[in-house]
Amino acid sequence: MDRVKRIEGTVTTPKGFLAAGVHCGIKKESLDLALVYSTSLAAAAGVFTRNQVKAAPVQLSRQRVPGYAQAIVINSGNANACTGLQGLADAEEMARLVAESLGISPEHVLVASTGVIGVPLPMERIRKGIEVITQALGPNGEEAARAIMTTDSFPKMAAVQVEIGGTVVTVGGMAKGAGMIHPSMATTLCVMTTDAAIEPHLLQVCLEQAIDRSFNAISVDGDTSTNDSAFLLANGLAKNPPIRREGEEFARLQAAVDVVAGELSKLVVRDGEGATKLVEVRVKGALEHTDARKAAEAIATSLLVKTALYGGEPNWGRIMAAVGRSGARIQEDRITISICGEQVVVGGVGVPGAFEAAAEKLKAKEVVISVDLGLGPGEATMWTCDLTEEYVRINSGYMT
Amino acid sequence: MDRVKRIEGTVTTPKGFLAAGVHCGIKKESLDLALVYSTSLAAAAGVFTRNQVKAAPVQLSRQRVPGYAQAIVINSGNANACTGLQGLADAEEMARLVAESLGISPEHVLVASTGVIGVPLPMERIRKGIEVITQALGPNGEEAARAIMTTDSFPKMAAVQVEIGGTVVTVGGMAKGAGMIHPSMATTLCVMTTDAAIEPHLLQVCLEQAIDRSFNAISVDGDTSTNDSAFLLANGLAKNPPIRREGEEFARLQAAVDVVAGELSKLVVRDGEGATKLVEVRVKGALEHTDARKAAEAIATSLLVKTALYGGEPNWGRIMAAVGRSGARIQEDRITISICGEQVVVGGVGVPGAFEAAAEKLKAKEVVISVDLGLGPGEATMWTCDLTEEYVRINSGYMT
Repeated sequence: MDRVKRIEGTVTTPKGFLAAGVHCGIKKESLDLALVYSTSLAAAAGVFTRNQVKAAPVQLSRQRVPGYAQAIVINSGNANACTGLQGLADAEEMARLVAESLGISPEHVLVASTGVIGVPLPMERIRKGIEVITQALGPNGEEAARAIMTTDSFPKMAAVQVEIGGTVVTVGGMAKGAGMIHPSMATTLCVMTTDAAIEPHLLQVCLEQAIDRSFNAISVDGDTSTNDSAFLLANGLAKNPPIRREGEEFARLQAAVDVVAGELSKLVVRDGEGATKLVEVRVKGALEHTDARKAAEAIATSLLVKTALYGGEPNWGRIMAAVGRSGARIQEDRITISICGEQVVVGGVGVPGAFEAAAEKLKAKEVVISVDLGLGPGEATMWTCDLTEEYVRINSGYMT
Repeated sequence: MDRVKRIEGTVTTPKGFLAAGVHCGIKKESLDLALVYSTSLAAAAGVFTRNQVKAAPVQLSRQRVPGYAQAIVINSGNANACTGLQGLADAEEMARLVAESLGISPEHVLVASTGVIGVPLPMERIRKGIEVITQALGPNGEEAARAIMTTDSFPKMAAVQVEIGGTVVTVGGMAKGAGMIHPSMATTLCVMTTDAAIEPHLLQVCLEQAIDRSFNAISVDGDTSTNDSAFLLANGLAKNPPIRREGEEFARLQAAVDVVAGELSKLVVRDGEGATKLVEVRVKGALEHTDARKAAEAIATSLLVKTALYGGEPNWGRIMAAVGRSGARIQEDRITISICGEQVVVGGVGVPGAFEAAAEKLKAKEVVISVDLGLGPGEATMWTCDLTEEYVRINSGYMT
């Protein structure tokens, strides 16, 4: 097996990982507490929100990676953010209770939360939930993926296999969306696991690179959360020769983690709140990568572009306007724009008669916007979704 | 009269200004061509979009200010942007035809356009329209204010009087909204007139300062257009002693122009596409003004904040998250937030029981969000509106 092979699976697919998801009562009915557990101590890496306002579990977990961990406990329905010292104490208690129940060290438990900001955690319910969930661990990871959902409409899971030093290694993962997702932060909630053997600091490099190419290249609404966390645990049970440097073996693991992170991030965009289309924005011909990135981000976050796509209108003027205000260095008469392969702008000016053909192609569920700035070698790709009335409905009645 | 006095009025209220609005056929039914004319040559100032993609009329008009002008011709329904050399020729022809018909110099005509990007102007219709409109000039400015509207639901007009050197001077203005409005650009379309006597370069300073405090402090959807232009004409017919330096007289004119620009910009926000609430975001206690401005802008442009306001939910966690990602220097436990005077956050943590009272106050049509960062003297205020399903509906079916 020379390449990364996609398989059905999730966080429990790599050897030695168990998981569970239960309802403990933070939410009215749905699953709201998840646990991922490795039967042996694992190398642990983490990437967190860049928001200056960081939730209590983020403040706790970021001190424990890169390092070693054996369990990750996650609640949904309550972000445990802007909750002061009580919030920190609650996050620590969650880690301690999980550790006690599993007979491991509290320092080896990572914590994440997602949900409403500013409300103290209902610790009585969480305590009981932790008692239950530590007894419910098993090989089926789907309930854990469901238990981390907030406004997601489906659980997000992915897994791959790759050969490292003659040994088959598995990488699996789960993530949650679906609003408040933006590249100027680390990521949304994402847990990945692997049975590869690798040093914690190299694992951290691997996770950071994977997130940069996946969760940091998507945008749903331009907002960024106080809680975003991505974790990667590697327990070594595949028994490959341990990866201790960035060579061929590291590259293979990186490729595998990239695929899982990429799949999960696209699932998040596809499930963007109220979204009906997955939109890929490709910018090339920029003077430098940063120019391409600025232009791609301006297009991917423009409300006017996103509403036009929802309406099925190839309104390329809004794309030109977004590029023009992006800060990318441009020359208006060098710009070419295609929508789903249909050229609509050449030399900065509209192609006569292209509107109908482009409108026809915009009916697809997956849309590609390609912009060539015609100036240099810089390229960037981002993924986003359209903006719909449903997004407004979901977010105007979130708390009630 | 020691202060600026608000009066009913518009661009035709100052002495010597006439205007007209007609339907020339760019749009199906509504008025789509406006003309403002001064009976004598006027000092002229202009502020334009900062978008790198600039419409043809912007490219033309920015070369003519500060300087002198006698007429401004504006069409709606077509932006004449991304239209290449033909677009420039069309903008020049519009100026020339107006000049010929009015018997003035083509260099003394300013041009602006607003509407769909990338479609050549229907010049045959515009030529006929200019013939008609130059004969239709009169003292009632409302039809001109209607003719520059795109998705606006009402015309936006304002006027004031102030005494300068013992002489009563009048300032009037009109503007159009309603989407694509954002502080990172100059402004939307705005024409202001005054019968004050003042040098063109001082008039330019006056306009730039007024726009900075008004149109540059509002945000509807974070997008910025290729066409935004604000003009100020001063024909001197009030016969005040001409203003030649920035002293007491200049300050009085500035105050008057500030009030007109401020009124017009708030009317634009109030008429934000689909908006149901006018929202004032006040940030104080920042280390510097730029920090306050960053925090205010992040709040004013957050889709999550704007949808929560629409839903009437005092979801202050989203305000905290916006402040946290704004780039402003903050200390989480120093932050205080009030919604319509109701304290909801003190020391970075929610005030127990404040939710219901704040929710009650959020039912108002005018909402104030006050954030105190608790660190320094920096302050900034911005105006925005809520985000509704109606915004999405308007912008997903704009072209069809």
